[in-house]
Amino acid sequence: MRAAVYRGPGEIAVEDVPKPEIESPDDAVIRVTHTAVCGSDLWFYRGDSDREEGSRVGHEPMGIVEEVGDDVTSVEPGDRVIAPFAISCGECEFCRKGLYTSCVEDESWGSEANGGGQGEYVKCPFADGTLVRVPDRYADDEETLEALLPLTDVMGTGHHAAVSAGVGEGDTVVVVGDGAVGLCGVLAAQRLGAERIVAMGHHEDRLELAEEFGATETISARGEEAIERARELTHGGANHVMECVGAASAMDTAIAIARPGGTVGYVGVPYGVDEEGLDVFTMFSDNITVRGGVAPVRKYAEELMDDVLQGTLDPSPIFTKTVDMEGVPEGYAAMDDREAIKVMVKV
Amino acid sequence: MRAAVYRGPGEIAVEDVPKPEIESPDDAVIRVTHTAVCGSDLWFYRGDSDREEGSRVGHEPMGIVEEVGDDVTSVEPGDRVIAPFAISCGECEFCRKGLYTSCVEDESWGSEANGGGQGEYVKCPFADGTLVRVPDRYADDEETLEALLPLTDVMGTGHHAAVSAGVGEGDTVVVVGDGAVGLCGVLAAQRLGAERIVAMGHHEDRLELAEEFGATETISARGEEAIERARELTHGGANHVMECVGAASAMDTAIAIARPGGTVGYVGVPYGVDEEGLDVFTMFSDNITVRGGVAPVRKYAEELMDDVLQGTLDPSPIFTKTVDMEGVPEGYAAMDDREAIKVMVKV
Repeated sequence: MRAAVYRGPGEIAVEDVPKPEIESPDDAVIRVTHTAVCGSDLWFYRGDSDREEGSRVGHEPMGIVEEVGDDVTSVEPGDRVIAPFAISCGECEFCRKGLYTSCVEDESWGSEANGGGQGEYVKCPFADGTLVRVPDRYADDEETLEALLPLTDVMGTGHHAAVSAGVGEGDTVVVVGDGAVGLCGVLAAQRLGAERIVAMGHHEDRLELAEEFGATETISARGEEAIERARELTHGGANHVMECVGAASAMDTAIAIARPGGTVGYVGVPYGVDEEGLDVFTMFSDNITVRGGVAPVRKYAEELMDDVLQGTLDPSPIFTKTVDMEGVPEGYAAMDDREAIKVMVKV
Repeated sequence: MRAAVYRGPGEIAVEDVPKPEIESPDDAVIRVTHTAVCGSDLWFYRGDSDREEGSRVGHEPMGIVEEVGDDVTSVEPGDRVIAPFAISCGECEFCRKGLYTSCVEDESWGSEANGGGQGEYVKCPFADGTLVRVPDRYADDEETLEALLPLTDVMGTGHHAAVSAGVGEGDTVVVVGDGAVGLCGVLAAQRLGAERIVAMGHHEDRLELAEEFGATETISARGEEAIERARELTHGGANHVMECVGAASAMDTAIAIARPGGTVGYVGVPYGVDEEGLDVFTMFSDNITVRGGVAPVRKYAEELMDDVLQGTLDPSPIFTKTVDMEGVPEGYAAMDDREAIKVMVKV
């Protein structure tokens, strides 16, 4: 099969690799129809984080079940499924309490056995604990499928930011970051009933999309200026701040614009935070809670899918570019150049 | 009057200074009968944090109201009162929601006008918002007064750590730090119904006191060894961890022993965290919530006082040394040398 392989900073190759196969009775093999390139893929693409050369990449597959192991009961061949970025057994302590990302099983899409999430096929270990079935009625509706694809990662992640920030009805919330996760965070905050949603970023087109998604105000600025403006708009800081970037500077911005006693919900994969650290002094003096982390999107898949199927949630406009399997390297380049917010891969 | 004055690292002097006076109708002047030396005073005493030479020190006064301004209604001359370490107006947004430490009024005991918290008198601005009256029946009972004195800071701070860590009935909690705050944290966790309380520290005598206070297990170790031991005892990490030190290493320890999805309640004044930063990678991958900060002890004063007066709470054993006004420098030295857990000053 064809699959994307990491060949070093700035180099993604589409290569012929062995098709993954059922190895355990819990496995399912899925023919991938849609997948995506993630903002977090850019960390290794840019050489900012380590990744083994030759490793498979991608972690947002959707497709059709081709084959299942003997013990798999929740899906069968022919089913349309989405696969969260984290593989989860569904049975350990952490899966049972909804923290699927802390599953005790150490599985990821990136292994050779599982095939990588940007390829023609994946093998899903713990299929019953991981996969989410799309009801047959919607299983071939392209528009619905494109709206469901972000539930594999960024929509669930944006929702986790909102939940972690404690966003509820009537709240004022600031969303730091206008990437795909930040934009999905705006959708999530609106869905949870926030009254004022201030979207903060650097890109006019993305902030316009934020407004379409429900942002009531936008801030196009950086650093101190952005902080000042957010504090002004929120009369001294927001009780709920969603950090959707991951860079140390964005964390500090989020902490700085939180109102004393407020909460920062954070989901950005930490980057550069090891050198600079968190602004724990402001956290301390203002009693700012920092809550969140890698999003257990499996936990949120059903409720978000319900809304997509009912037509009240549609994150698909974040896909501003679509490529085919051979176009994956071009997809990475477009995201790296910020030409695309997020790239969909139609395999 | 006599008051303690900071004269540079390692130097506390007791000097003659002007007695503070009523300046505003909201003020009260209090004749201090009891006060204390705080672990956080050691940061400047050791030269680890900046403080202006010649400034007044101390922030844990208890005493008898001597005079009140025209607008003060909650206390009158002759009343026994305790004074939280943070002065609060009682009327701003933050005071109204119980976050007294974020009061918009910028007042502290350390100013010349207010007299410092380690002296014969203090002036308390916003007396109605700050002072807590001890019922007359207990106002001269020395044993009760010594049990109430920690409510000015460390007992409320330990309680804030427990509340911030989400400690409740039947919980397992690890308390990092065997100083006065950590020991009060053990009392607080027990009071909130924790079933297992693991106290972690370096001093046998303090850990013994922790056991008297309700710790069910103790860990006398540092660094990786302490983390290993705590993980073993909690079968993989505690859902509730209370960080009661403030050093970067203690924060990292607390984060490391939190169970995925768990909460670190922290109240230690941050020290050294600016260089090393928080272990945000573990926080992120394990979805650890970090909550807490400088404790709004005014919020907790009544409920904790109720328990002290009913005889179900007695933090006074943390005072392992008592000095008089002239003995304050000796009190600092004893705490710096770790000869005393906490020093009471009978003025």
